[in-house]
Amino acid sequence: MAASSPVSPLAPTSVPDMPAIAGVRLATAAAGIRYKGRTDVLLVLMDKGTTAAGVYTRSKCPSAPVEWCRKMLKGGKARALVVNSGNANAFTGKSGRDATKLTADIAAKATGCKPSEIFLASTGVIGEPLDARKFQGVMGDLVAQAAPGAFLDAAKAIMTTDTFPKVATARVKLGSATVTIGGIAKGAGMIAPDMATMLSFVFTDAPIAAPALQKILSETVTDTFNAVTIDGDTSTSDTLMTFATGAAAAKGAPRISKASDKRLTAFRKAFAKVLANLSEQVARDGEGARKLIEITVEGAKSKASARRIAMSIGNSPLVKTAIAGEDANWGRVVMAVGKAGEPADRDKLSIWFGGIRVAHKGARDPNYDEAAVSARMKEPKIMLKVNLGLGSGRDRVLTCDLTKEYVAINGDYRS
Amino acid sequence: MAASSPVSPLAPTSVPDMPAIAGVRLATAAAGIRYKGRTDVLLVLMDKGTTAAGVYTRSKCPSAPVEWCRKMLKGGKARALVVNSGNANAFTGKSGRDATKLTADIAAKATGCKPSEIFLASTGVIGEPLDARKFQGVMGDLVAQAAPGAFLDAAKAIMTTDTFPKVATARVKLGSATVTIGGIAKGAGMIAPDMATMLSFVFTDAPIAAPALQKILSETVTDTFNAVTIDGDTSTSDTLMTFATGAAAAKGAPRISKASDKRLTAFRKAFAKVLANLSEQVARDGEGARKLIEITVEGAKSKASARRIAMSIGNSPLVKTAIAGEDANWGRVVMAVGKAGEPADRDKLSIWFGGIRVAHKGARDPNYDEAAVSARMKEPKIMLKVNLGLGSGRDRVLTCDLTKEYVAINGDYRS
Repeated sequence: MAASSPVSPLAPTSVPDMPAIAGVRLATAAAGIRYKGRTDVLLVLMDKGTTAAGVYTRSKCPSAPVEWCRKMLKGGKARALVVNSGNANAFTGKSGRDATKLTADIAAKATGCKPSEIFLASTGVIGEPLDARKFQGVMGDLVAQAAPGAFLDAAKAIMTTDTFPKVATARVKLGSATVTIGGIAKGAGMIAPDMATMLSFVFTDAPIAAPALQKILSETVTDTFNAVTIDGDTSTSDTLMTFATGAAAAKGAPRISKASDKRLTAFRKAFAKVLANLSEQVARDGEGARKLIEITVEGAKSKASARRIAMSIGNSPLVKTAIAGEDANWGRVVMAVGKAGEPADRDKLSIWFGGIRVAHKGARDPNYDEAAVSARMKEPKIMLKVNLGLGSGRDRVLTCDLTKEYVAINGDYRS
Repeated sequence: MAASSPVSPLAPTSVPDMPAIAGVRLATAAAGIRYKGRTDVLLVLMDKGTTAAGVYTRSKCPSAPVEWCRKMLKGGKARALVVNSGNANAFTGKSGRDATKLTADIAAKATGCKPSEIFLASTGVIGEPLDARKFQGVMGDLVAQAAPGAFLDAAKAIMTTDTFPKVATARVKLGSATVTIGGIAKGAGMIAPDMATMLSFVFTDAPIAAPALQKILSETVTDTFNAVTIDGDTSTSDTLMTFATGAAAAKGAPRISKASDKRLTAFRKAFAKVLANLSEQVARDGEGARKLIEITVEGAKSKASARRIAMSIGNSPLVKTAIAGEDANWGRVVMAVGKAGEPADRDKLSIWFGGIRVAHKGARDPNYDEAAVSARMKEPKIMLKVNLGLGSGRDRVLTCDLTKEYVAINGDYRS
């Protein structure tokens, strides 16, 4: 459980003050889904007119809440979000679908909106039926207590074995008005004896129509959340949603209907920064992580090819265990490049660890200095760069090392 | 190093007596490539007329010996095989190519054949130049001492961090004559600080033409060596070769020129058995392995689809750590099925651990008995079965669990 784990040594050293976002109120409660003595339900209320966008796991076996959200997203409107930790409501068959419907009905009744305007996410144990009636007992209080700005409490309520809550914020000009972006995330932690989930919710008061919001989100996720891997195991429940209340229109922000609108340039940049910040925090809280690893692949045939090679390196247990051992083992990087199935030419390959070139054009760098590289490997963030020497394709992914703690977290239930 | 590791608890309880194979003689020596106090070079001499077949790593960054073998295999003839442990001669650029040529020249001169009839394999450190002159000092003795039947010594000489030598044999009728098959393998062990390699060499006295031998080998590898995964990391040096001396023709075995020859039926079966035996030993000696895992996927759209789903399960760190913890965590199996990208329908999915159905049609099995399943999970071999309920595609792969010892073997060099 989260409470018993020490905080990741890679945790950010400071937590930002999270400003309120006009049109968004939050509340948390302890519904006793699975955990004792901590909050496990989050309710987010959003004003009328809020638009919604979402991206979800590509798993062929998605959770019931993921299926619910995909369906309701077609309406593009949101009034509330209900998230619980402790039970993923995944692989729960018809009872899982019934539980999502009951949860939405309870929330709709308490908030006075339609069930189709309620979005849901669950994280925790797979395969256990979720008793949605437990939400009934707390929903009235949640609605009554919902308050602006309670993002840190919200981030805490959705944690499973995360070792720290994850929040990020930005302010940016939209037309002549300042709009606010605020987001929370939970990472790839585990909840014994089942797998966990990446959940993230980002809110803004910018007035952006749902199709435009969806386009911005889909474009931004590629180089933020989708560029992070902990262990290559994709959850059944991964959910990233963005809600735009439009409240900033009252102070003069222009209403945006198209993602191509030039006035969005600064907003897009700030939005990408918030997503990049949250997704980096997920990597920093990877299970058992002791090193943050940034992998840059350049000189590939294309960006897509660079991404696949970077992911092959980032998911390689041999590369990740080597970095855990502070070993600049470029032989394993060669292996991971070679197995990616993408265009590569051994004799054009160069590799850097921490900015020091260790291999050049298919062989050990003639100036290789083991002591210098070893010193770099002791740092908490490891920059690993590969140049394929084939083209101009470039990409970057974040991951963490593979430690004995990862195995302990995920394998020690019965010991 | 191998010598200091305890033998895998999954090692076979007995080692077969390895019969001589007519036309094959073997010798080993300590050339001091990297290890001290143990053999590290294997020479296999084969009589004139020996045919060769091979399959190699699909890595885009293959080792120099792999490139050498691919080229020489076109001739289809073999007179000698030289294998060294301690240095993989991979990612060594031009010096690597020069080293293969020098090794072949030394062996050709000592044995009186052409360099193009010499096959080579190396396993050990990546990126270190291989000093092939070291073979010069031992080659004369190797040729002089080569003797039939020395397969167990041969298997020992090619070990890196393998914890036991791997041999297998079979006798089978070809026409009215009995032919012999004998093979050795080394597994996915590690040699600090670099990755290791799967090598296997199988010999027979059956008179089979090279194209037919290649076809049999290529067909057989799919369900044997290619159905084994330790950590999903493909070596730059994987090599599986088969040599047929044809010596059994002297005692009446028919000369086979086509893989489709009906007289091969029993031979194919015995050959597949030897390869299956050797590849299972590789899984049993996976780094840090404490459990052998047999994953069967049935009810898939096709055999290829079943294979990809089985590999997604077999390479999932979450599934492998769960089994290390003796936890029948079918939620993680659902996850691995879902992420495979193959056709799957959550609500038709059933899962068995150790023959006990734990999940049925998209939810926990109504008769799930945790105590019974937990008892099964304590066994050294875990049978994991998934039925997708979609078609008749079926496949099976072997793997092992992911333990703290794996991380220790691969990450503790600097500690």
